[in-house]
Amino acid sequence: MPHILRISLASKTSAQRELKGLELLLGGRALTARIVQDEVPATCNALGRHNRLVFAGGALAGTLVSSVNRLSIGAKSPLTGGSKESNAGGVVAYKLGRLGIRAVIFEDRLSKEDGWMVVRIDAKGVSFLPAADLAGLGVYEKAKRLFERHGKDAGLALIGPAGEQHLICAGVAVTDPEGAPTRYSGRGGLGAVMASKGILAVVVDDSQAPKEEFADRNTFMALQKQVAESVNATPITCEVFRKYGTASMLNVTNNVGALPVRNFSRGVFERAREIGPETLHDTIVARGGEGRVSHACMRGCLVQCSNVYPDANGHTLVTPLEYEAIGLLGSNCGIGDLDDIARLNYYCNDMGVDTIDIGAAIAVAMEAGLAPFGDVGFAQKVITGIAEGDILSRLIGSGVEVTGKVLGVYRTPSIKGQALAAYDPRAIKGTGVTYATSPQGGDHTAGNTPRLQIKQHEKEGQVGHSRNAQQGMAFIDSLGICMMLGGAIKDQNILLSLINARFGSSFTLDEAKKIAMETLAVERKFNAEAGISTVHDRAPEFFYEEVNPDSNSVFDFTVEELASVHG
Amino acid sequence: MPHILRISLASKTSAQRELKGLELLLGGRALTARIVQDEVPATCNALGRHNRLVFAGGALAGTLVSSVNRLSIGAKSPLTGGSKESNAGGVVAYKLGRLGIRAVIFEDRLSKEDGWMVVRIDAKGVSFLPAADLAGLGVYEKAKRLFERHGKDAGLALIGPAGEQHLICAGVAVTDPEGAPTRYSGRGGLGAVMASKGILAVVVDDSQAPKEEFADRNTFMALQKQVAESVNATPITCEVFRKYGTASMLNVTNNVGALPVRNFSRGVFERAREIGPETLHDTIVARGGEGRVSHACMRGCLVQCSNVYPDANGHTLVTPLEYEAIGLLGSNCGIGDLDDIARLNYYCNDMGVDTIDIGAAIAVAMEAGLAPFGDVGFAQKVITGIAEGDILSRLIGSGVEVTGKVLGVYRTPSIKGQALAAYDPRAIKGTGVTYATSPQGGDHTAGNTPRLQIKQHEKEGQVGHSRNAQQGMAFIDSLGICMMLGGAIKDQNILLSLINARFGSSFTLDEAKKIAMETLAVERKFNAEAGISTVHDRAPEFFYEEVNPDSNSVFDFTVEELASVHG
Repeated sequence: MPHILRISLASKTSAQRELKGLELLLGGRALTARIVQDEVPATCNALGRHNRLVFAGGALAGTLVSSVNRLSIGAKSPLTGGSKESNAGGVVAYKLGRLGIRAVIFEDRLSKEDGWMVVRIDAKGVSFLPAADLAGLGVYEKAKRLFERHGKDAGLALIGPAGEQHLICAGVAVTDPEGAPTRYSGRGGLGAVMASKGILAVVVDDSQAPKEEFADRNTFMALQKQVAESVNATPITCEVFRKYGTASMLNVTNNVGALPVRNFSRGVFERAREIGPETLHDTIVARGGEGRVSHACMRGCLVQCSNVYPDANGHTLVTPLEYEAIGLLGSNCGIGDLDDIARLNYYCNDMGVDTIDIGAAIAVAMEAGLAPFGDVGFAQKVITGIAEGDILSRLIGSGVEVTGKVLGVYRTPSIKGQALAAYDPRAIKGTGVTYATSPQGGDHTAGNTPRLQIKQHEKEGQVGHSRNAQQGMAFIDSLGICMMLGGAIKDQNILLSLINARFGSSFTLDEAKKIAMETLAVERKFNAEAGISTVHDRAPEFFYEEVNPDSNSVFDFTVEELASVHG
Repeated sequence: MPHILRISLASKTSAQRELKGLELLLGGRALTARIVQDEVPATCNALGRHNRLVFAGGALAGTLVSSVNRLSIGAKSPLTGGSKESNAGGVVAYKLGRLGIRAVIFEDRLSKEDGWMVVRIDAKGVSFLPAADLAGLGVYEKAKRLFERHGKDAGLALIGPAGEQHLICAGVAVTDPEGAPTRYSGRGGLGAVMASKGILAVVVDDSQAPKEEFADRNTFMALQKQVAESVNATPITCEVFRKYGTASMLNVTNNVGALPVRNFSRGVFERAREIGPETLHDTIVARGGEGRVSHACMRGCLVQCSNVYPDANGHTLVTPLEYEAIGLLGSNCGIGDLDDIARLNYYCNDMGVDTIDIGAAIAVAMEAGLAPFGDVGFAQKVITGIAEGDILSRLIGSGVEVTGKVLGVYRTPSIKGQALAAYDPRAIKGTGVTYATSPQGGDHTAGNTPRLQIKQHEKEGQVGHSRNAQQGMAFIDSLGICMMLGGAIKDQNILLSLINARFGSSFTLDEAKKIAMETLAVERKFNAEAGISTVHDRAPEFFYEEVNPDSNSVFDFTVEELASVHG
C-alpha cells in the first residue's frame, strides 16, 4: 500500500507511514494542502525552517493511465504568503508512484555545514549527496550532470539560480520522459522554498521498484483502455490540443479582447496571428528536425498537448511552448515573434523562474519606462541576468507585485502577490472571479472559464461559473490528474473505479468530491490563519477603474459578490 | 474658530468647514486617523486617486506654547497598507494654525495635464502653481527655489526625487524656523502619497493671517509661561535633551544590548563611543561655526533637542543629527563615524527618504553581500542613486521588507512592512511589543519604553508597559504636541486649560484621553478593513529564533500575549 515518506533534513533521516482507509484516496493538492495546514505554522517565514516542502502524486500515479501523473508541490508560499500548490507533468510523480510513495514531506532544513545537497530517493531508501559543485548552474546543465550521475532513467525535480537566490518566483523544474527539465511547478516560489531547505535537486530512481500488485489487474487494464478510447474519441482533444497544444487558447482570448497586451492595456494583439496556434503548428511542421507538434509530458499521456519548438535548423529551441508563456512573455510584453518568445521561455526555464510572473514583471518594467514594449533584448537581459544576481533581474524574479512596487507602477496585475495569467479579468470574468477568490492567488489553473459558451464580458452568472470551475479543478488536482483529461472523460466514476481496482477499495465519486471541496476549505483556513482573508479577495484597482478598450468592460464585482463564491 | 480645509485636486477647488463642539479638541493623529477612516476605502491602492492626504496640527498649533506645533501627516500607507500618521516639527503646523486651519484634506489627484504642481495656502485661500521645473531636484534645492518664489517666511512641506518616483519609503520634508527642509514625516511612504496626487510641495504663508483672538488671553499667556517654567525645571530636558538631543538614547540602548548593530546581529557596538552623545556634543562645540548643540525645530520650543552638526570647517553638514539616524545609518550598517553618518543623513534628506527604513535596507543589502558592513561609499552611492532612478537605489528606497525579499535575506527587521527603529525588540521588550502591535507597524514613536526603570530584557509586565506607552503616545499625538514635552509637564490638565483658554471651551482631560484611546481603535478598524489583523501583530521570525548575544534574549511573546495589548 502507498505511503508517505517523511524526510527530516536537519537530521538527514527519513521515515515512512502507510496510508490507511480514506487516506488512500488523498493525492495531489488534497494531500499537499492538508500537510501544509497540519504541519506548517501559518505565520512562519515561508523561507525559514518551519515551512514544509511537499511532493504528492495522485491515487493513480505510477500507472500508465493517460494523464494521471501530475506532481503537486506544496508549501506555504513566499510569494502569496498563503497555502500553495503548483503541479507539473513530467516523470517524478510516476516514479514516486512506482516506489509506492504517495507523498514526500521535506521538513526543517539541511544545516549550513551540509551545504547544497541532492536528495536521492530509490527503492533502497533516501540518500543525501553533496552537490555544491552544481550550485549556480542553469537548470539544463544541472539536469545534464545529474543524469550523468544517476542514469538517464532517473526522474529529477530541481531548481535553477533563481531558486538558489531565494527569488520568490522561482519554480521547481521536473524532467519529462526524454529528460528535458522543463515541466514546471512554476507558481508561488516553490523553488525558493526548496532552496531554503538546502536542496538543489530531488532524484527519483524507480529502476528497482517492485512490480505492482493490482487488486484487480484485469479490471484496471480494461478501464485504462476505456480512458484511452475516451481521450481518442474527444474531438477537442484530438483536433485542438493534440495539434495546437494550449496555444489554441490564444484565438479564444484574442477574439474576446482578453489577451494581455502591453501590461494589460489592451485585449487584442495586432500581431496575434504571428504568435497564434496555426503559426506555431505550421512553423514546427515546416522546420521539422527535432520539432514536434504533439508530445507527451507524462508517461502514458494520450492528450499530448505538449510540443517541441525547433529553430530554423530543426534544433530544439524550447519544449514546450505554451499559451501562458506566449501571452505573458509575448503579447503582454509587446513581443510578436514566436522565436523570440521561445528563446525567452528557454531562458526562464534555465534560470528556474515562473514565465507568468516574470512576463508580467517585465511588462511592468516596460511600462515604467525601463525599455520600450517589444524590446526582446531587454527581456532576455533581465532574465539571463538572474544567473549573475543582477539587481534588476532579482527584482523581476521577485515577481510582478514587488516589481510594480519598486518601480512605482500603479497598473500592476497581481492578486495576493501573484501575477495574473493570460486572461484579462475584465474580459473573461469567470476567470477574473477565480483570480480574485482562489486561495492560490491570481491563478488561472484554479478555475478557468474561457471556453464556456457564455457571454464572457457580462457579469451575470460568473460567480457561479467560477465556483464550479474552482471546485472542478480542486477535484482534478486532488486526484493528481491533468486538467486536459477532465474534458475527455464522460463519466468521472471511471476514475474512482480505476482507484478501486488498483487498491481493492470501494471509494465513491462523492467521497472524492467531498475531499476536493474540503481541500478548498483547508487552503482558505490556512490563509486566514496566515492573515489572508476575504479582504484580499479582490482585483487590482486599475481593473475596476480602467476600461479595456478591446472588451469595453471593467472588472465590476462587489465585495459581497466575491465573498459569495466560497461563502 | 478653526476649520478644515478640503482641497479637491481633480477640480482644483477648495472648501472649508468650521469645527464645532468636541471637534475642536481633535487634532494631529486623532484627526488624520478619523479622516482616513471616514473617507478612504480601506482596500484602495494607496497610490491611487481614492486615497487622501491629510495634514493636521493640534488644538494648540499656531500658538507659541513650547512644543505644540507638530504637523501630523496621514493617509493610507503604501508601505504598511494600513492607517498611517507620521508627525514632524517645523513651521507648517504653526502657520496653518495661525491661518485658522486645523487640517487640510487633499482629495483625488491633479490631472496628468496639470503636471507637477505646488499648492499654496495663504490668508486669501488656495492656489495651484505649475512646478514642472522643480521635478527631479533634491529637497534642499527645491526648498531654496520655493523660498525664492514665496519669500523666506513661507513654510514648506515638500518631497524629493524618492517621492516623485513613488518610492514607498519617501517622506515629506517640513521646513524649520531657519528654512532647513529637514523635519521629516518620514515613515510609511507619505511622500509617495503626496506625489501620487501630483503635488511637489505645499507652501503655507501666514503673513496675512489675522491676529488671533484668544477667548481668555491672560489665562492663556499665564499658562504658556507655566509650561515654559515646567520645561526649564525638568532635569532630563535641560541636562540631557537640550545638551545631547535624542542621541543621548544611544548610551541607554548600547548599555542594554539594544543598539542595532550590523543588521540587528548584535546589540552593543564596539564603536559606540565614537558615535555617542558625548562625542556628538563635543564635536559640535569644538568645531563651532554654524554648529549648535541645541536648536528649536518649532517656534516657541524650549526643549530644543535638535542640533546643527557642522563639518571640520564649521559649515553645516546636517541638521538635525538624531538618534534613529545614528542607529540605523550608523551602527546598524557597521558605520562608526559621525561625519559619515551626518553625510548619509544629509543625502537621505535630500532624496526625501526615511532614514530608518533606508538604514535598515542598506544593512540588509550588506548582509546579502552587496557590500561589507561599514562601507560608507556603498551606502552613499545607493542613497544618492535615487536621483538617477538607479534600480538598487529604488529597491532600497522601497524599504527594508521589499529589499529583504528581493535579496533573499531571511533576517529582515520589519513589521507590517515597516522597518524597526533603533531598539532591538529582544532587548527592550516593551518597545518590541509596541512594534508588533501598533497599528502603525514597526514604529518606536508609537510607544517607546527604553527609559523606563524596569528590567528591559524580561518579559514580565512589558505588555502593560507597551499598552501604557501606546495610549500615552496616542494622547500626545492627538494633541499635536511633541513627545519631548510629555515628560516635562507634571499635570496634563494644563494642556486642556490652554485649549479652553484659547477657544472658550470646557474640555476635560478625560475627553482628550478618550479621543486618544478611540484613535487607536479607529486605526485598528481601518487596518482590519484593509486586511491587517492581529495575525500581523508579531515580530519577524528571526527575533524569536535567534538570541541576541549582547542581551542574551529573544523576542518571546505569545500570540495571546500580543493580542492582549489592545484586546
